[in-house]
Amino acid sequence: MSLKELISVARGEIPADLLLKNARIVNTFIGEIEQADVAIYGDRIAGIGDYVKAKEIIDLQGGFLAPGLINGHTHIESSMLHPARYAQAVVPRGTLAVVTDLHEIANVCGFEGIKFVTDLARKLPLDMLFMAPSCVPATHLETSGAQISSKEVKKILAHPKIIGLGEMMNFPGVVSGDEEVLQKIGASKGKVIDGHAPGLAGKELNAYLSAGIRSDHESTTLEEGKEKLRLGMYLMIREGSSEKNLDALLPLVTDNTYKRCFFVVDDRNCSDLLREGDIDAVVRKAIDRGLEPVRAIQMATINAAEYYRLYDRGGIGPGYIANLITITDLAKLELDMVFYQGKLVAREGKPLFTLPPVTLELRDTVRIKPPMGKSLRIAAVDKTYPVIEIVPGQIITKKAMEKVKVVDGAVTPDVERDILKLVVVERHRASGNIGVGLVKGFGLKKGA
Amino acid sequence: MSLKELISVARGEIPADLLLKNARIVNTFIGEIEQADVAIYGDRIAGIGDYVKAKEIIDLQGGFLAPGLINGHTHIESSMLHPARYAQAVVPRGTLAVVTDLHEIANVCGFEGIKFVTDLARKLPLDMLFMAPSCVPATHLETSGAQISSKEVKKILAHPKIIGLGEMMNFPGVVSGDEEVLQKIGASKGKVIDGHAPGLAGKELNAYLSAGIRSDHESTTLEEGKEKLRLGMYLMIREGSSEKNLDALLPLVTDNTYKRCFFVVDDRNCSDLLREGDIDAVVRKAIDRGLEPVRAIQMATINAAEYYRLYDRGGIGPGYIANLITITDLAKLELDMVFYQGKLVAREGKPLFTLPPVTLELRDTVRIKPPMGKSLRIAAVDKTYPVIEIVPGQIITKKAMEKVKVVDGAVTPDVERDILKLVVVERHRASGNIGVGLVKGFGLKKGA
Repeated sequence: MSLKELISVARGEIPADLLLKNARIVNTFIGEIEQADVAIYGDRIAGIGDYVKAKEIIDLQGGFLAPGLINGHTHIESSMLHPARYAQAVVPRGTLAVVTDLHEIANVCGFEGIKFVTDLARKLPLDMLFMAPSCVPATHLETSGAQISSKEVKKILAHPKIIGLGEMMNFPGVVSGDEEVLQKIGASKGKVIDGHAPGLAGKELNAYLSAGIRSDHESTTLEEGKEKLRLGMYLMIREGSSEKNLDALLPLVTDNTYKRCFFVVDDRNCSDLLREGDIDAVVRKAIDRGLEPVRAIQMATINAAEYYRLYDRGGIGPGYIANLITITDLAKLELDMVFYQGKLVAREGKPLFTLPPVTLELRDTVRIKPPMGKSLRIAAVDKTYPVIEIVPGQIITKKAMEKVKVVDGAVTPDVERDILKLVVVERHRASGNIGVGLVKGFGLKKGA
Repeated sequence: MSLKELISVARGEIPADLLLKNARIVNTFIGEIEQADVAIYGDRIAGIGDYVKAKEIIDLQGGFLAPGLINGHTHIESSMLHPARYAQAVVPRGTLAVVTDLHEIANVCGFEGIKFVTDLARKLPLDMLFMAPSCVPATHLETSGAQISSKEVKKILAHPKIIGLGEMMNFPGVVSGDEEVLQKIGASKGKVIDGHAPGLAGKELNAYLSAGIRSDHESTTLEEGKEKLRLGMYLMIREGSSEKNLDALLPLVTDNTYKRCFFVVDDRNCSDLLREGDIDAVVRKAIDRGLEPVRAIQMATINAAEYYRLYDRGGIGPGYIANLITITDLAKLELDMVFYQGKLVAREGKPLFTLPPVTLELRDTVRIKPPMGKSLRIAAVDKTYPVIEIVPGQIITKKAMEKVKVVDGAVTPDVERDILKLVVVERHRASGNIGVGLVKGFGLKKGA
């Protein structure tokens, strides 16, 4: 496809490859619905208006047409799916671009893991846009399967599909001016740098932002979100499997702020993806909570595109990538057709594309030193013990001190009071390192 | 200045270079006014909040503080001033960044002209951001002092201060798929491409945009502006010396659209700059016409910054460039202090900086072939003659056919009916080419 041909299609001189007639377009540029035809040539939108000539015509009969949804921040590994299976799950949901920070697979397999996903991504009918993992391992308290230094971050950033530096979880490192952390930030100069700063406020937050970090997906309260918006951060409103912030943050979305807010799922497991959906589920929930549907779609398309500097996405305009979804019921966001680069790739929730073969690479990475028996014991010596308290729907937790049930001199799960044992087993190097603690809030009554 | 130091200032650990206390900040991120101190270190804003330590403290006593104004599109040559004098005129007006397409000086002096301005710009207390001239000469109907081919455009674009391709005036060339024009656009891939498409609509406009052009400053009617916004263009609202579009376009600025609208002056002569102002005058006029002052300032700061991908400008946030203005009366946009990169450079309309010497380069470029006497004659042979009709406050003109005054067999100026002679003299190559016509609307009663 040449630009000259695209221009000719836009002028109506030569036939479009695909013409979507009688669409009610969700115009994300100006937040309106408008009636028109959309002419597509190759992977691009050529023109919007009255078009006639095309190799293929689909009459939408007044059905809604919106840009493909953009999941603004996620770790696809959290789906627990192979990337091809992940595409199978989310493409019929309208997700046609996903910004993913591969720090989970990198944490286990390093470069090899990143390469595995970036190579595979080319074969999938959605655009994976990658952020270079900034924090592998996530903290120095962790044993990881790989480490990514500032030098390696620099190398990763040179890859054309890497569009920025992934969430800078090491906010204490930024705020304290840690050299290695600042090197990573320096290497990302001129690119997007995502933040991750739960609870950071005041001067510490200013310090974090002064390094050029411009977004956050960790706000859990209105006050936190408001302060971050005030200081110039983009607010990613997260609805993951175990981190649900929409209800707390939606009141922040106003005429004055909405352009700096967008939706992300961060971590969403396959069960939620299949049952509820991906970013489409977030849009639905936002509409259900009272957000105007067109605005909700803007927050799942063009707003994310603008933040990530993806200039030919998120809108239905001439020259834009023809990633499109048709919607039968706007308020319920009921999807029908999904077009990736101008090709129909899903319909009525069913994928219409062939998956690349699911290969058996990068398996057997779990290495544990047996036996673990004795290491799981907590000797009962104190009166009270620290218990991790789960906050429902959030990933932040609370710390409580509780009296515990003791059997034979050892702390024992107390199902009645929902105080259970939590075990973290080092699984990269079979070092035998084990962390044992207590947790409240899972509500499990018996083991597997 | 190191990032580590900036972070330390933001944390309040080491003193700021400059502390602006008790500011009422025009927060362009969220469109609100908020009370806080602003700590500056080197050329950057370190933090916003309660700060104490600083080498220098200025107590604004509740005065307004806004980001430096950005003139989103201009040709500084239209000021008829040397670039240093231009800075002297606009910096006290709060213009601290100007996106300028040097096609006027390039039209006369080519590369040498561009180099002259870009070299000089480094010495001035405002940031000149340059667009590579896309159309030198403006049309093939014109004789110019230089030509800039697509190969040369490519070279110019490689310069770090060149942020995009200047207004693509040759819209017929784009729409017809002219190879050389498409080469220029191809060379700009990944950069901003400004448009210039007066009156272009429908399929032709779609064709123009499909090439990746994303802005326009030529809309003169509401319908034209609306169509351009709908199709994904950024709307530059222009108030030049002889092109005033604010009144026609302001109704387009709504909660849904304002982020895609910003102010430009295009061509503003020195007399208007000194008497009325630069982009500040546009903000004042917009407020006078009913636009909310904070929004008007957003349209003269962050909106332009976002369109031009100037990620550390247009807002008062940690890590942003400390280009700031203080405002004594917000509704009247009465300016007091102007800070460029954290340094006071103007106060109460007076520049406080030393101008670089105004050198005598690039002079004597006007080359005319004398004598011109006979060439200025219009032989009276027809009953009526075409007359260019000026549209007040606009650069578009109308064509009328008028009976003319004849003396000695020649068409003569008719002061009574305001039909005057207009002469265009080729002045680059002394070719002797002269165009003679008639114009209505200047209202001149006698010559110089």
